[in-house]
Amino acid sequence: MADKISFEAPRGMRDFYPEDMVWRNRVFDAFRAAGEAAGFEQYDACVVESYELLARKAGEEVGEQIYHFLDKSDRHLALRAEMTPTLARLVAQRQKELSFPLKWTAIAQCFRYERMTKGRKREHYQWNVDIIGEESVLAEVEVLGAAVDALRRMGLTTADFKVHVSSRKFLGELLAKSGIDAAKHAQVFLALDKRGKMPDAEIAAMLKDGGLSDADVEATFRIMETKSHEASPELSELFRLAGVAGFADALVFDIGVIRGLSYYTGIVFECFDTAGEFRAIFGGGRYDNLLTTIGAEPATAVGLGFGDVVVTELLKSRLGGDAAARKDGIAVGFMFPEQRDAAVRLAARLRSEGNRVDLSLHAQKPKKFFSHAGASSAAKAVFLGPDDVAAGVARIKDMAERTETGICL
Amino acid sequence: MADKISFEAPRGMRDFYPEDMVWRNRVFDAFRAAGEAAGFEQYDACVVESYELLARKAGEEVGEQIYHFLDKSDRHLALRAEMTPTLARLVAQRQKELSFPLKWTAIAQCFRYERMTKGRKREHYQWNVDIIGEESVLAEVEVLGAAVDALRRMGLTTADFKVHVSSRKFLGELLAKSGIDAAKHAQVFLALDKRGKMPDAEIAAMLKDGGLSDADVEATFRIMETKSHEASPELSELFRLAGVAGFADALVFDIGVIRGLSYYTGIVFECFDTAGEFRAIFGGGRYDNLLTTIGAEPATAVGLGFGDVVVTELLKSRLGGDAAARKDGIAVGFMFPEQRDAAVRLAARLRSEGNRVDLSLHAQKPKKFFSHAGASSAAKAVFLGPDDVAAGVARIKDMAERTETGICL
Repeated sequence: MADKISFEAPRGMRDFYPEDMVWRNRVFDAFRAAGEAAGFEQYDACVVESYELLARKAGEEVGEQIYHFLDKSDRHLALRAEMTPTLARLVAQRQKELSFPLKWTAIAQCFRYERMTKGRKREHYQWNVDIIGEESVLAEVEVLGAAVDALRRMGLTTADFKVHVSSRKFLGELLAKSGIDAAKHAQVFLALDKRGKMPDAEIAAMLKDGGLSDADVEATFRIMETKSHEASPELSELFRLAGVAGFADALVFDIGVIRGLSYYTGIVFECFDTAGEFRAIFGGGRYDNLLTTIGAEPATAVGLGFGDVVVTELLKSRLGGDAAARKDGIAVGFMFPEQRDAAVRLAARLRSEGNRVDLSLHAQKPKKFFSHAGASSAAKAVFLGPDDVAAGVARIKDMAERTETGICL
Repeated sequence: MADKISFEAPRGMRDFYPEDMVWRNRVFDAFRAAGEAAGFEQYDACVVESYELLARKAGEEVGEQIYHFLDKSDRHLALRAEMTPTLARLVAQRQKELSFPLKWTAIAQCFRYERMTKGRKREHYQWNVDIIGEESVLAEVEVLGAAVDALRRMGLTTADFKVHVSSRKFLGELLAKSGIDAAKHAQVFLALDKRGKMPDAEIAAMLKDGGLSDADVEATFRIMETKSHEASPELSELFRLAGVAGFADALVFDIGVIRGLSYYTGIVFECFDTAGEFRAIFGGGRYDNLLTTIGAEPATAVGLGFGDVVVTELLKSRLGGDAAARKDGIAVGFMFPEQRDAAVRLAARLRSEGNRVDLSLHAQKPKKFFSHAGASSAAKAVFLGPDDVAAGVARIKDMAERTETGICL
């Protein structure tokens, strides 16, 4: 035997044992089904990108967190930290041929080297839903509708989550109306984005550093008490259309949603669990400058990023840790080697009829077979002994009901 | 606008535009469905592994081809080139708790830095199907049955492909019977694995370098003419059981299948297209020493690796380039902004009824809408004008049949 090496995954990387995969499938299946239903087309690209592409969009801070390396020809490569630079690259490559608006979706593994804290891993999967090239707020409605649909398909209701929606444009207008110069808005957004994470006194200090007077700071905090979106025609239209589409109950107006990233330009949103236990479930908004940052033609867009980690924690907490466990297969076993052929034949037949069949690979005592089948994902079990094969008929047992019916061999 | 950067993927990495994703989905869906039907449990792990784990199994040659790098804490990390070291790690981590035999499956992205030739990329997806801890040949039958099932689900028949099966143990017995010492077998396997790729004269030279006499070389080439597996009880049982399970027509005995990797210990197999146009579709076999190479307890296993590249080429060639294109959605459009609400409401209803609905995001002329819908993946299209909304009923058009029926709004 060779020297033993570590059997752990590298720090921050995740293993998915079968019991983890049932949860991941529940989440991914909902992503795919919701994207499908709303007519989004799937795309993907390799997780390895050129470092230059990722750094261009990411800016300094995220640039620091990118896993990067040189290949044998000294190409500077990197593992993507988010999907948007790749999306921009794919669209730019065919900008003249593609028919806009595009409705594209992907489930993308993303890497980020960051300090390990609770629930923070160094890789995760992020569902991306984007509409590129559509100015009307119906783009926001379609993207949000798909996200709400995904959460419902996972088994959650609007009692479990709410999408907090605002508009940076609306906030900018309110600031301008209070006499705060547009040149200072970026700085104000940055400071306001920290609300809830640091005391208001510190935020006030940040605002003053950004050139705001005491009166401006006071006005800014007053603006942050705005409870109605009615003064924004764009937000009003979004809430109204969400009502027409049947998911207005999932949305709340929240002037406090800013989104840190400077590249959002209009409506922004973040989804939270109503109990306030977890970090954001998904977030996104309108962005206009993604394509131009890599030198392509401009195009307005709306998109969201929906990670797999937080929603899986939320699902486990709301539905129970075993909720994703499946009980839908058929276990087939046999007592002696002489019944193996009959078991193989029965398994083949049941599979061809569309069943998921776990065939025991060697002869077993019935007690052992049924105990294993009971603990497995099988809903039913058939065990073949000499008498069954001789009679050409066996019993198929419903593991939950503990009832039996006959099955021809 | 910023400086333009390259919009191409890094060399050897693949982009998947929507028309590529329909093919990938066809292949992946077949992998998943076949694994499901045969009762394999899904697992996964991050594509980033420790370099040490990968190098341990890979040996020198593959070790050279691994993408590897240091993280910020000087951990030596790497992108996996194959899934088996990860599989070994996961099993080793829980070897005392897991209930064997394990039947596990994964679709794993794998990276290998190699010279670029036709059809060779630097990343691909590989479907892995493994049974760990079962000695009987029923393990081989289950693994092969799942692979054949996947090919059928993709739309191929056994006229398109054949699985070539042999046994290194059987070949070893034949060599031993001819007086060729077991100590020389590894060298003989290595040489014979090159058959078809280099002239027999060179293979003969390799065999002589390995210590074989002229008579031994002649005997070896004679053994390679063996046309029947009947002298091998194990192979006979495999072919018989494949018949019971209903896929014997997919298998052929081929003494020439060796598999380069030294870690195979028993039955080995490779699947090829019958026309001989492509590289191997999948390959695998019995291996006994994977777990011990990383310092875990020994366990016998059978596994296969089935890449996505070759089978997709084969599918496109056999089924036609458009075969995966779908025509199953409903396009919904509207003539003026006044009909937008009705279109949003109709799209929401059709989606809730299980349809895939591509809703136009802005008002359009009917001609433009129907021309776009015809070129899209929609099978049906509904276009709302003022009269339709006033009447509360519209027409839904079957795009292929060019027939219309009424639909209530």
